[in-house]
Amino acid sequence: MIKTMAKTKFQLARGFQDFYPQELAERRWLFEKMREVSRRFGYQEYEGPCVEPLSLYVAKSSEELVRQQTFILSGRGGEKLALRPELTPTLARMIAQKQINLPKPIRWFSIGPRWRYEKPQKGRTREFYQWDIDLLGIETPEADAELITIAAEFFKSVGLTPKEVVIKVNNRRLMEEKLNFIEIPPQLTPQIFRAIDKKEKMTERKWEKWLEEIGLNKLQTRDLRKILADKDFAGESEELTNLFSTLSDMGVANYVEFDPAVIRGLDYYTGTVFEAQDRAGKFRAILGGGRYDNLVETIGGSRISGVGFAAGDKVVEEVLRKFNKWPTINPLPTKVLVTVFNESLYRESLKIARQLREAKIPTELYLTVDKLDKQLKYANRQKIPYVVILGPEEEEKRIVTVKNLKTGGQKTYPQEALTKEIKKIIKSQMDNEE
Amino acid sequence: MIKTMAKTKFQLARGFQDFYPQELAERRWLFEKMREVSRRFGYQEYEGPCVEPLSLYVAKSSEELVRQQTFILSGRGGEKLALRPELTPTLARMIAQKQINLPKPIRWFSIGPRWRYEKPQKGRTREFYQWDIDLLGIETPEADAELITIAAEFFKSVGLTPKEVVIKVNNRRLMEEKLNFIEIPPQLTPQIFRAIDKKEKMTERKWEKWLEEIGLNKLQTRDLRKILADKDFAGESEELTNLFSTLSDMGVANYVEFDPAVIRGLDYYTGTVFEAQDRAGKFRAILGGGRYDNLVETIGGSRISGVGFAAGDKVVEEVLRKFNKWPTINPLPTKVLVTVFNESLYRESLKIARQLREAKIPTELYLTVDKLDKQLKYANRQKIPYVVILGPEEEEKRIVTVKNLKTGGQKTYPQEALTKEIKKIIKSQMDNEE
Repeated sequence: MIKTMAKTKFQLARGFQDFYPQELAERRWLFEKMREVSRRFGYQEYEGPCVEPLSLYVAKSSEELVRQQTFILSGRGGEKLALRPELTPTLARMIAQKQINLPKPIRWFSIGPRWRYEKPQKGRTREFYQWDIDLLGIETPEADAELITIAAEFFKSVGLTPKEVVIKVNNRRLMEEKLNFIEIPPQLTPQIFRAIDKKEKMTERKWEKWLEEIGLNKLQTRDLRKILADKDFAGESEELTNLFSTLSDMGVANYVEFDPAVIRGLDYYTGTVFEAQDRAGKFRAILGGGRYDNLVETIGGSRISGVGFAAGDKVVEEVLRKFNKWPTINPLPTKVLVTVFNESLYRESLKIARQLREAKIPTELYLTVDKLDKQLKYANRQKIPYVVILGPEEEEKRIVTVKNLKTGGQKTYPQEALTKEIKKIIKSQMDNEE
Repeated sequence: MIKTMAKTKFQLARGFQDFYPQELAERRWLFEKMREVSRRFGYQEYEGPCVEPLSLYVAKSSEELVRQQTFILSGRGGEKLALRPELTPTLARMIAQKQINLPKPIRWFSIGPRWRYEKPQKGRTREFYQWDIDLLGIETPEADAELITIAAEFFKSVGLTPKEVVIKVNNRRLMEEKLNFIEIPPQLTPQIFRAIDKKEKMTERKWEKWLEEIGLNKLQTRDLRKILADKDFAGESEELTNLFSTLSDMGVANYVEFDPAVIRGLDYYTGTVFEAQDRAGKFRAILGGGRYDNLVETIGGSRISGVGFAAGDKVVEEVLRKFNKWPTINPLPTKVLVTVFNESLYRESLKIARQLREAKIPTELYLTVDKLDKQLKYANRQKIPYVVILGPEEEEKRIVTVKNLKTGGQKTYPQEALTKEIKKIIKSQMDNEE
């Protein structure tokens, strides 16, 4: 693709992306998978604005997200606005605004663009799409399990197996107890969580220095390391025990495991947290989420607990490509090309095209008078399955010739029966493909 | 809606809009209508970035659009970026970048958000959705006719009749001849076109003053008025004559009429221009478009002519609401609520829900242990059509009770046959609704 890109006067903004029809068709395939699994569990789709007052994100999201990664724009009245870097604050605001009138529990999902000012690299763009899905109003491990099951069912639906991906689960309340046990004062917890979240992205030495700066002594640092490496203490949490038992009943136990090193970066999580990774750990997190008890209240609503996750399109695509599970989809809707034999038959061809379209059959009419060869070549290049030919002989007999470009075969039909016949052909072809 | 809105700490940014599930379901209905008619004519869907370098719009779009209405943001490297106020410059850029490799003609459409900093009012928001559809590579009236036919077929598909809406058509080349005839120098044409486009938005006096400032004398102003009021000279243009004749063959003649006062505001139009309005003229233009010969070349590609139009979601909605043609759609996907009789039967209910979901039947599981009455009340409120009940008696007999909340009727089925039976019920219900 890069090779054929012409040097033109105007270029894409850095970190942004075009979706040519082929690319958009594939992206929409992914979105439909997300949509289908969301709806299968009874979730309703919503959408917020792409722009929010900057203040909505300050202190709600992570500091890093707001200070370094948010695209800021000024309204002409001087108001500070932001291109949404994530959707959860919008969700909380929307729920706070209509809280009394919404039946509980609230099961909502959304798929749309988000923006983060990050260094563009493979699998990371400044504009990307994200699937957000949340369940609010039920504060039990069964609710957490529903969300994790949805994540696993999504993986199944795109063909990713438990050998390829894993959902790592932890619980912040359990981790608070653990930190308490090694005598780390509770006020340090948010900083420690942030350090745990970033551990994999820095050297051991640098990480230890950070903990020292936070106020941990050598012994506590050693103990913290031990906690993070121990995969066996989930049983100490009743919440986690119930969660894993429900996940087993849901039939997705093979997709999940306990991992105390998974803590997630957003400040508003309070209980269960989880993130999905490829087993080899080559890519960034495929999706991440958790339980947030206080978010809606912070935004100005009444207290309502929620649990949810978000999955970015770019990493999912990378992982699917790695396992050869990213599809190739022909973006052209056209089923029939109606050719034009000569100028005097243009009107007749137009009528045939009109007739097919009235039956909702995607039809192109060849709009210029070219040799039939050239018209067939166009259909071949575009992979249009059927071509209708209407020459003087056909017109005299009130018939048309239908050519199947895949098989090369052709057949004639009375003009008035064409629509019915084409419908039959397309239907039988679709049945064969199933 | 306003009434039930709680005063919360955080509000929507001015001119922006939330889509709660009900509102999004209706919006998606509209988008699917746009998508279906686009695909019916063989158009492929694409999408560009929401953010472009500001320079792309300067001199390409109208001055008003860039100077007054574009949301500008600064990248952290100092680059000037814009939230796209329209999609056509992006389309031209994308085509210029891959021009050699794209089979011609190019039939593309897109549906997505755009942003304009306008005064928010009824039917106008600063963030809105727009359908763009374009045909590039064919420079004939037949191509213009295809786009206008698509606009008319879209109206048909949402139920708007020729008595309610009209597509007014004009040709800039014809208008240039007319201006030439009354001895207006060609270099004034862009300014005159801008004045024609804004005529309806100002007083007669102010408009005349504007023309005087441009350099027209009293006689020319009088002659220009006469031209704009004359609905009978389309026949002087061979392009328009062919266009109207093709539109008649396409079966949409009753949706179109010639109107020299329609000129469109964007500078890049060169030939046919058109816009759709409600017959009573109460609303802003529903859609507008035209032929642009030089746009791709301006962006840095080779010369390729195009024709296209754009329709904003807000005005379409206003017009549909006025004629009582805006639908009400239940946004909830759920077909079945599986109730939970008591804690010890939770696991059994969960298995039923799992079984239904495996068959892709949208199913909610009631996640807390409440009285059955409360669970049924929830299902009623959410308009969930079927409820599965699994009490101790049913469990003993390995059956389930299915309650139809619409009719109040109920029936029992063996547990292992449930999925098949529910599928049958849903299918027969859908057949009845058709």
